Amino acid sequence: MKVSHIEHLGIAVKSIDEALPYWENVLGLKCYKIEEVADQKVRTAFLKLGQTKIELLEPMGEDSTVAKFIENRGIGIHHMALAVENIEEQLAEAADKGIRLIDQTPRKGADGMTIAFLHPKSTQGILTEFCEDKNK
Amino acid sequence: MKVSHIEHLGIAVKSIDEALPYWENVLGLKCYKIEEVADQKVRTAFLKLGQTKIELLEPMGEDSTVAKFIENRGIGIHHMALAVENIEEQLAEAADKGIRLIDQTPRKGADGMTIAFLHPKSTQGILTEFCEDKNK
Repeated sequence: MKVSHIEHLGIAVKSIDEALPYWENVLGLKCYKIEEVADQKVRTAFLKLGQTKIELLEPMGEDSTVAKFIENRGIGIHHMALAVENIEEQLAEAADKGIRLIDQTPRKGADGMTIAFLHPKSTQGILTEFCEDKNK
Repeated sequence: MKVSHIEHLGIAVKSIDEALPYWENVLGLKCYKIEEVADQKVRTAFLKLGQTKIELLEPMGEDSTVAKFIENRGIGIHHMALAVENIEEQLAEAADKGIRLIDQTPRKGADGMTIAFLHPKSTQGILTEFCEDKNK
């Protein structure tokens, strides 16, 4: 298993416009991209914090999984994405080790990444994403 | 404000012994230290994931804040710690900008760090810690 660093933290927010002043004015980070991910029904905003991106997730519609997350748990950290090499192999290795996969095969995520989610029941209560930049 | 990177993620676990196999055998990280923080009533285990430490937090006793967190929300990400320089100044600046502080003045944390917590009500639902390594 090659997990090199935390690629991003996904943060559930009600509104990117209302959340950004905290990240930009209080912490001094800079939003470099806003992107809609239609199939996930979220609008995302990206900021860089060292090696890790902060990905703000604003639900587009009440049936978005992020809207349901906020309803149940409130705003806050939604998932942790780990940078891997050869995501297909890492996913197969995790499954071999008994990890329950949400995505059986990798798919396209935000910010040009290839991603797959693992189930929090088998990842210590943390919704976990494997993330590979295949454009590198 | 100088926030350079995510110094660590604090992860609430019921048992370090039960949690470590996931981090070590599935993700391939290595635990390099186990430390008790008596005044916080937690036993901690540290692993390195790129620039960021993973800090597993096991409650020592039912009145530990981590025990209460697990009771209310289950195991998972408990807090996010941001590396800062000159923590006293950063804390004053955050307070000036309307951020509610849990620790009015920095105190000693695990792993030799000087730390202060900010209240999640004013940090986008994320229990946030400022963290400075004054031994550097």
